[in-house]
Amino acid sequence: MKAARYYGQRDIRIDDLPEPQVGPGTVGIEVAWCGICGTDLHEYLEGPIFCPTHDTPHPISGETSPITLGHEFSGVVYAVGEGVADIAVGQHVVVEPYIIRDEVDTGPHSTDYHLSRDMNFIGLAGRGGGLGEKIAVQRRWVHPIADSVPLDQAALIEPLSVGYHAVQRSGAKAGDVAVVGGAGPIGLLTSAVLKALGVTVVISEVSDLRRRKATESGVADHALDPRTADVAAEVRRLTGGRGADVAFECTSVQVVLDTLMDALRPTGVLVVVSIWGKRAEFDMHKLVMKEIDLRGTIAYVNSHPATIELVESGKIDLEPFITGRIGLDGLVDEGFDTLINHNDSAVKILVSPSGKGL
Amino acid sequence: MKAARYYGQRDIRIDDLPEPQVGPGTVGIEVAWCGICGTDLHEYLEGPIFCPTHDTPHPISGETSPITLGHEFSGVVYAVGEGVADIAVGQHVVVEPYIIRDEVDTGPHSTDYHLSRDMNFIGLAGRGGGLGEKIAVQRRWVHPIADSVPLDQAALIEPLSVGYHAVQRSGAKAGDVAVVGGAGPIGLLTSAVLKALGVTVVISEVSDLRRRKATESGVADHALDPRTADVAAEVRRLTGGRGADVAFECTSVQVVLDTLMDALRPTGVLVVVSIWGKRAEFDMHKLVMKEIDLRGTIAYVNSHPATIELVESGKIDLEPFITGRIGLDGLVDEGFDTLINHNDSAVKILVSPSGKGL
Ligand SMILES: [Zn+2]
Ligand SMILES: [Zn+2]
Repeated sequence: MKAARYYGQRDIRIDDLPEPQVGPGTVGIEVAWCGICGTDLHEYLEGPIFCPTHDTPHPISGETSPITLGHEFSGVVYAVGEGVADIAVGQHVVVEPYIIRDEVDTGPHSTDYHLSRDMNFIGLAGRGGGLGEKIAVQRRWVHPIADSVPLDQAALIEPLSVGYHAVQRSGAKAGDVAVVGGAGPIGLLTSAVLKALGVTVVISEVSDLRRRKATESGVADHALDPRTADVAAEVRRLTGGRGADVAFECTSVQVVLDTLMDALRPTGVLVVVSIWGKRAEFDMHKLVMKEIDLRGTIAYVNSHPATIELVESGKIDLEPFITGRIGLDGLVDEGFDTLINHNDSAVKILVSPSGKGL
Repeated sequence: MKAARYYGQRDIRIDDLPEPQVGPGTVGIEVAWCGICGTDLHEYLEGPIFCPTHDTPHPISGETSPITLGHEFSGVVYAVGEGVADIAVGQHVVVEPYIIRDEVDTGPHSTDYHLSRDMNFIGLAGRGGGLGEKIAVQRRWVHPIADSVPLDQAALIEPLSVGYHAVQRSGAKAGDVAVVGGAGPIGLLTSAVLKALGVTVVISEVSDLRRRKATESGVADHALDPRTADVAAEVRRLTGGRGADVAFECTSVQVVLDTLMDALRPTGVLVVVSIWGKRAEFDMHKLVMKEIDLRGTIAYVNSHPATIELVESGKIDLEPFITGRIGLDGLVDEGFDTLINHNDSAVKILVSPSGKGL
């Protein structure tokens, strides 16, 4: 079978690999669609970051590069391993792509397995990836999804779960007003979850195209350009002088952080979803005087079932966020390069590893 | 009557003033003891900060400097105004020293009156102060305290409430492990609340005298010198590798902030109690990757009853934190100067405005 493998910075190759073994407790999945993620781009341009190098195996997977890429994928079950009784061939599924030590409690009540030591991701640190035609995944990480959800949209469940978990971290509830800084994929999907929960969403975004996507997809009630609008003042105006209840930092840009701190009401919550490569200059005095909560969020933890339910019920439509569909051979030229060079018109580009979806 | 009044930077005078009017809805209090606070020192050395200047009245109190100082005080009721039926002459009381707009809901379920617009403090922005012999205070802000609590210790209820609210903000519970950065008055009193709630307390403090106070008073289980100990490593050792559940930043020192971020477990909570005069360099990546909550806290909100209960029940003994008792005439020489020059041996210096307590 064909698979895209990461060898190192700017070195991704389409290789011919043997099919995975569907061993005891695992599920064999034929990948339908796999999204390209900002994390994949970072590995390509600046990595290895998450990926193990060729000489240092990942401590859990034991694998080294080359590593099959792709962690945002949907597919159809083609085989089940010994002991798997609650899932059948033909079932549509998505994967929660964790690599976690066996001794960690990943049960339904755990709230922190995603923060366990050496945690990493399928498609970045081993155990196959969604940019290969087939993959075998431990039953624990396989989530069934209704046939009524198109498999291309299902491939967006993984990044949507990132948004779902970020919203959970904020404690946002129906009737609240949220400000989202940045309308890239994560800003848009976080906004989609907020809207589905009945929250009013104000997006701050410099790109005209992304603002248009935010309003046309229906996830933003207001989309402001921070170069021409005073976002914090506008939010206060919209909230009768009070300020936003929650805010989401999805840019890792200093001025966005400052604006969100300003736009929040006293006792407001600011969730940081973005990855900061450097330290922030943080207005600690404002945090204290307004009693703001600044909360970090990473990935997801037992978030997939609720996220899937939001999509199955029709509360979230993921179609507007799919901006490209390509085959495995176009991964770098049509996929990575488009995302790097036309960053603000592309949201999510999907890859069909077998080419069958095209 | 005598009162210490703030005229401006390094200009505090002991004035002779008329006694306050005990008007409708207010309680006349003869001050027993009033503590000197870091905030008072800041006004003296660098102010006016909270105090209104002589030409700009505070928007709620309407007062300008000179302003009677003192917001940490206990006393005995000597008169009650019209309409006050639930408090009697002779009652021992402490004051929650707020100046808040009449239209703000300050009822028992409010969680944010302390963050309302133009909020300020009795003893800093008008309405008399604890560094005068007598004061009339709105009934709402007067809290009875049992006669069994010595009035000198009762004067520490106000700063103890700051610690109580900080601990509430952290969500700490019995069995947790807390790291407190800094063993100044607020660090020590926050630790006292933590200990009373059954939390294990590790204090990080550079001053030998303060570390000794922390252990001898019983509020710290461990007191570490961050110049010689690796505080984060030591906390991990004490917690079986996990890290602290909660941490309290009581220094506004960058390296302390970094150490606390390091010492926390994933999903830990870091409460910032100190006032930062400049921006912090904040490790946003660590906040995200460990899903830490950074929470600001200021003053108190409906915290006095529970704080008083902790002292009345004997769960907290405030005696060890009283390191001086002086009269009003010694306020600057014996009080402020001692706190400025012998900062690490003095915790709380109490003033008896009438001199009766001496
Ligand atoms: Zn991703
Ligand atoms: Zn104070």
